[in-house]
Amino acid sequence: TPQERETDDEKNWPIATENVLDLRYDSNHRAELLVDQLLFPAQDGQKSNPNVFVVGSTLQRLLKGAEDVGLFKEFQDGTMRGFTYANRESFKDFYGDGEGFLSDAECQYIIKHELDTLRAKNEEHVPGYPKVKLYPGKSVVRRLQSKGVLVQYFPLHNKEDLKRLSFSWYKKIKLSFQPLDDIRHYFGEGLALYFGFLEYFTFALVPMALIGIPYYLFDWEDYDKYVLFAVFNLVWSTVFLEVWKRCSATLAYGWGTLSRKKAFEEPRAGFHGALGFNPITGREEPVYPSSKRQLRIYLVSVPFVLLCLYLSFYVMMVYFDMENWAISIYNENPNFATGILLFVPSIIYAVVIEIMNLLYRYAAEFLTNWENHRLESSFQNHLVLKVLVFNFVNCFASLFYIAFVMQDMVLLRQSLATLLITSQILNQVMEAFLPYWLQRRRNKKVHKRMRRMMGDKELPLLEQVQLETEMNTYLGTFDDYLEQFLLFGYVSLFSCVYPLAAVLVVLNNITEVYSDAFKMCHVFKRPYSEPAANIGVWQLAFETMSIIAVVTNCALIGLSSQVKAYFPESETQMILIVVAIEHVLLAFKFILAFVIPDVPKHIQVKLAKLEFDSLEALKKRVSTHFYVWNKILIYCFAANCLLFFFFFYIILRLFH
Amino acid sequence: TPQERETDDEKNWPIATENVLDLRYDSNHRAELLVDQLLFPAQDGQKSNPNVFVVGSTLQRLLKGAEDVGLFKEFQDGTMRGFTYANRESFKDFYGDGEGFLSDAECQYIIKHELDTLRAKNEEHVPGYPKVKLYPGKSVVRRLQSKGVLVQYFPLHNKEDLKRLSFSWYKKIKLSFQPLDDIRHYFGEGLALYFGFLEYFTFALVPMALIGIPYYLFDWEDYDKYVLFAVFNLVWSTVFLEVWKRCSATLAYGWGTLSRKKAFEEPRAGFHGALGFNPITGREEPVYPSSKRQLRIYLVSVPFVLLCLYLSFYVMMVYFDMENWAISIYNENPNFATGILLFVPSIIYAVVIEIMNLLYRYAAEFLTNWENHRLESSFQNHLVLKVLVFNFVNCFASLFYIAFVMQDMVLLRQSLATLLITSQILNQVMEAFLPYWLQRRRNKKVHKRMRRMMGDKELPLLEQVQLETEMNTYLGTFDDYLEQFLLFGYVSLFSCVYPLAAVLVVLNNITEVYSDAFKMCHVFKRPYSEPAANIGVWQLAFETMSIIAVVTNCALIGLSSQVKAYFPESETQMILIVVAIEHVLLAFKFILAFVIPDVPKHIQVKLAKLEFDSLEALKKRVSTHFYVWNKILIYCFAANCLLFFFFFYIILRLFH
Repeated sequence: TPQERETDDEKNWPIATENVLDLRYDSNHRAELLVDQLLFPAQDGQKSNPNVFVVGSTLQRLLKGAEDVGLFKEFQDGTMRGFTYANRESFKDFYGDGEGFLSDAECQYIIKHELDTLRAKNEEHVPGYPKVKLYPGKSVVRRLQSKGVLVQYFPLHNKEDLKRLSFSWYKKIKLSFQPLDDIRHYFGEGLALYFGFLEYFTFALVPMALIGIPYYLFDWEDYDKYVLFAVFNLVWSTVFLEVWKRCSATLAYGWGTLSRKKAFEEPRAGFHGALGFNPITGREEPVYPSSKRQLRIYLVSVPFVLLCLYLSFYVMMVYFDMENWAISIYNENPNFATGILLFVPSIIYAVVIEIMNLLYRYAAEFLTNWENHRLESSFQNHLVLKVLVFNFVNCFASLFYIAFVMQDMVLLRQSLATLLITSQILNQVMEAFLPYWLQRRRNKKVHKRMRRMMGDKELPLLEQVQLETEMNTYLGTFDDYLEQFLLFGYVSLFSCVYPLAAVLVVLNNITEVYSDAFKMCHVFKRPYSEPAANIGVWQLAFETMSIIAVVTNCALIGLSSQVKAYFPESETQMILIVVAIEHVLLAFKFILAFVIPDVPKHIQVKLAKLEFDSLEALKKRVSTHFYVWNKILIYCFAANCLLFFFFFYIILRLFH
Repeated sequence: TPQERETDDEKNWPIATENVLDLRYDSNHRAELLVDQLLFPAQDGQKSNPNVFVVGSTLQRLLKGAEDVGLFKEFQDGTMRGFTYANRESFKDFYGDGEGFLSDAECQYIIKHELDTLRAKNEEHVPGYPKVKLYPGKSVVRRLQSKGVLVQYFPLHNKEDLKRLSFSWYKKIKLSFQPLDDIRHYFGEGLALYFGFLEYFTFALVPMALIGIPYYLFDWEDYDKYVLFAVFNLVWSTVFLEVWKRCSATLAYGWGTLSRKKAFEEPRAGFHGALGFNPITGREEPVYPSSKRQLRIYLVSVPFVLLCLYLSFYVMMVYFDMENWAISIYNENPNFATGILLFVPSIIYAVVIEIMNLLYRYAAEFLTNWENHRLESSFQNHLVLKVLVFNFVNCFASLFYIAFVMQDMVLLRQSLATLLITSQILNQVMEAFLPYWLQRRRNKKVHKRMRRMMGDKELPLLEQVQLETEMNTYLGTFDDYLEQFLLFGYVSLFSCVYPLAAVLVVLNNITEVYSDAFKMCHVFKRPYSEPAANIGVWQLAFETMSIIAVVTNCALIGLSSQVKAYFPESETQMILIVVAIEHVLLAFKFILAFVIPDVPKHIQVKLAKLEFDSLEALKKRVSTHFYVWNKILIYCFAANCLLFFFFFYIILRLFH
C-alpha cells in the first residue's frame, strides 16, 4: 500500500514516512515534525485504503535542522560559513523569520535527515506489526523500510516552482546557459552538478566539432590527415578535465558544499550482519567480516565479470562474421539493397550491445548488493567499477580490434558511426520518451479513477499524491554519467578517425539536456537532494579514459600511412619515436594535472580564511565562556553581599 | 658575538634568544620563560664579552605550551589525543606533576614556538639598538635575527641522554634495529623519520643484494641473463614505496604527528615585501606580488637551471672523449698501468659530478631564497625540485647515454660501478669525517682558551656553551635524503646491468647509519626538532624515480640480446610487445598504488574514532556550558531568595 506525506505548510517540502508513532520513538531527541494523515474517500475500485501521511516542519525547526546537518550558507561578508541558528541574523538573505532562506531541496534534505536519524529508544514492537521489532539505537525509518511496513517515502513536487523552473530551463528554446542555481534550488547539488557537467562537456566539445566538420567534408576518403587532429584530441582531453575540476569547485563553493565537513557515514540501509559493536562509534550495529566480503568479491563477482567479458568478446566475433557475410553478399552483386545491408550488422550489434549493457547493469547492482558493503560510498565505488569495466570493453572492444588488429580504417569509421548513432537514438528513446509515454497513460488512468472516486469535489493534493505515487523513482545520476562517459570515450579515443563523432555528440547532448530536464520534471518522482561537492568517482573514471585516449591516439598516429611515409626504411625507428612521444605526452599530462591547482586561487584564499577563523574562534571560545561564567558569579556574589550588609544594618539599627 | 641560552632547570631544554627585554614585548601574552645570563670571566684574549642567555621554563608553562602547539600524546585508552592541560591527568605516562611526560625535543620545540610567536606590542626601538625598530604584531625574535642583533639561538645537548642514546644507537656494533623512539625523543620526529627511512630502505635492499651476488659471481661476463632481475627490480621498486607509506604512517601515529592538525603557516623568516594585509588572517604583514615571483622563476631560475643542465651535458661529453682516449691508449699497449688508466676517466668524472652537485646546491638555495617565497613549505618544494632535476641529470645522464645511445653494456657496467663507489666514498668523507676532524681541532682550541680564561675552576656549562657555539649548524635532512634518492636511482634504474649495485648500497647505508648517527651526536649543534608526519616531498620524488625505473628496465629488457633472440625475424614485433608489457606494468603500478591503503586499517579506525569523538564532543560542549551556566544562576537566585525571606521574616518579627 503506497504511503506518502505532504505538508500542511507550503514552505516545508513534503516527504513521507510510515507512522506517526515512529516520530516519538526516541524521546531524548524528538523529530518534532508536523505530521498529518491524508484520508482518501473509500471506494470499491481500490483495495485497502492506504495510510498516507504528509510530513512538514515549522520554519524554526528547519533552521535548527540546518545547523544539525551542517549546511553552509553565504555570510554577510560574502564568504560561506557553517549555518548556526544562534547567529542566523548575520547570514546573507536572512530576513524576518528566515522565510525563503533555505532552498526547497535543503528543507527536504533536512526533514529526511531528521527521519533517518530517528533511533528507537528501547526494544519494542511496531504497534500493529507484531513481527516487526525495533532495536535501541537503530534508525526506525530504515527498519520499517526494510521490513516493508513503510512502502516508500518521497518529496512531492511544488507545482509553481516546477512550472517556473521548467520554463526557464527547457520550455523556451534559447542559447543561454542552464539555470543551474534554480536547478540546485529545486533538485539539490548532486543533480545540478550533473547538468553543469553535461553543459560544460557539450561546450568543451564545440571547438572539436568545428574542427571536425571541415575534416569530414574535405578529406572525405583520406584517413591520413588525422595526425594533427589526434594531437589536438589528446591535448584537449587532458585540459578538459583539469578545467572542469576548477569549475565544479567554484560551483560547489557557491553552493556551500565544498567547505562542508562530511558527517560520519552511517551504514547503508541494505547492510545486514550479526549484531556487534562498531569500533569507531562504539554503537551497537550489524557487523559483517570483511574477509567474507572479500571472498564473495573474488570468488563470485570477479569470475562473473570475466564471464560477461568473455561473452561480450564472443558476441563481437559473431558481429565480425556477420560483417564479412554482408560484405561478401555486397561484393557478389553490389546494388542499393546490398549497400544498405552493409550497415545492418553494425546496427544489430549496436542494439545487442545496448541490451547487454542493460542486463549487465542489473546483474552488477544485484551482485554489489549481495557483496553487502557497509557504506553507501564503497557500494557505489564497487558498482561503478563493475559497470565501467564491462561497458568499456563491450562498447570499445570491437573498435580497438578493428583499429589495431584488422587495421581497417574504413570499417572502423563506418562501425564507429553506426555504433554512436544507434546507441544515441536508443538512449534518447529508452530514457525519456518511452517512460514519458507510459507515464501519460498511467496518469490518465489515475486521473479517471480519482474523478470516479471523489466525484467533482476538488482535492488537488490527494490527486497529486496519487499521481506521484505511480511515477517511477529516479535511480540517481549513475546512468546519465555512464552515458556521458561512453560518449567521451567515442570522442576522445577515435574521433580522429571519424571527426564527425564530436559533432554527433554535441547534437546528442543538446537534446540530452532537454530530455533529461524533461524527465526530471515530468517523468520521475522528485528525488531527494544529496549534497555533492564534485562528481566523485566519475572524475577518476573520465581521467582514466583520457589517459587511455592518449595511448590510443598515439597508436593511431603510429598506424597512419602519413607518419609511416616519413620513415620509409626503418619501421622500428618510427615506432620508437612514437613511443617516446607518447611517454613525453603522458609525463606532460601528469605534470599538468599536478601543476594546475584543483581549486581556483580566490576560493583557496576564502577556504583558508574560514579555516583560520575557526581556529581562532576555537582558541577564543573557551576563554569567553570562562569570562561569561565569572561575570555571572561576580554579580551574584555582589548581590548577596549587598543583601547581607543591608540585613545586618537593619538588625543593628533595630537592636540599638 | 655568539649569544646563547642555557637553562637553570635541568628539565627544560636549553635554547637561546637575544635579550631578556624581548620576552616582555607583548604584554597580553607574555612568554613567561625563565631567562638567565651567562657571565664569562673577562679576559684579554677575547673581544667584547658576549651576551649569552639561557632560557628555560617551568614544567607547568611547558604543559600549557604543549596545548598551544597542539601536541598529540597517548591517552589512557591507548589512542592518541590532542593534549590539554585541563585533563592532563587522564593521559598515559602522566605521573605527579608531569615530570618526564614531554620529551626533550618537545620541550625545546615548545620553548622555540613561544619565542617565535613573541610579537611586538607597539612600534618601538630595541633598547640599545637605535637602528632596530619593532613593528606591532611582528615576531620579535625573527626581527632581531634578521637585523643581526640576535646572532644565533639553539638548544644545548644533554650530556647524559646523549651518552645513553649514542650507546644504544651506534656505539655497540649489533644487528638490532635503531632505537627510533629514543632518537625521536632526543632529536624529534623529522630526524627519527629520516633514520627510520634509511633503515627501511637498507633492509628492503637486502633481498635484491642477495639475488645480486650470485648474478655477479656466476654470470660475470653474461649481460643477458638480467631480464629476470629487471622484472624483479621494477616490482620491487613499486612495492617498496607503498609499504614505506604504511610504515611511516604507523610511526607517525605512534609519535602523535599523524593526527596533528597543521597550524596556520606563518611567513618564513627570509620573506620580505611591502607592508600589506594578509587576505586570510587580516593581519598586517609583508606582501609580495606572486606575479613578480613568477617572473623571477621563469626569467631567471628556469634559464639558470637549463644552463646548468647544458653544462652538465658538456662535461659528460668531455668525459666520453677522455674515455675514448684512455681506451685508445690501452689498445696501443695493454698492460697493467694502462688497465688502471681505463678507470681514471670515470673516477675523475665522478669527482667532478660531486663538485658540480655541491656548487649547484648552493646556487639553487640562493636562487630559491631570492625568489622570495612566502611559506617555508613552498620554498622547500622549489628548492627540492631545482636540486632534484639537476642532480638526476648530472648523475644519470651519462648512464642513460651509454645504455641507450651507445648501447655498450660493458662500459655501462664499468662506469656505473665507478660512479657509485667514488661518490659513496666522497660522501662519507665529506659529510662526517672531515667535519669531525675540523671539529676536534676547534674543540681543542676552545678547551685551551676556556682553561686559560678561568684557570682551574670548573664551569662545565660555560665550556659546553662555548664548545657548541663553535659547532656547525645541521642544515636539515635535505642532503641526507638527496643522497638516498640518488642511491635509489642507481639501484632501481641500472642494478640489473650491475647486480652488485644493491650490495654496494647496502654496505654504504650500514656505514651511513653509523656516520650519520655519529655526526648528529658529535659534529653538529643540536637541531630543533620539527614535527613531521611523513617524509613529505621526498615520497613524491622516490615515486617518480620508481616510475622512471619501470620505463628504463623495460627498455633494458628490450635491448637484451636474450629477448632479441626470441624475435629473430621482426624487431618491430619485439618492440611492440615490450612497449605493451611496459604499459601493463605502469597501469599495474598505478592500480597497486591506488589499491594499497596508505594508512594501515587499525590506524584508520583509530583516526576515525578520534574524528567521531571530537564531532560528538563539539555537539555536546555548547549544551554542557549552557548547563553549567544555568546551574550557577539557579544557585545564586536561590541564595538571594532565601536571604530576602529571612530578611523580611526578621523585619516582620521586629515590628510586631
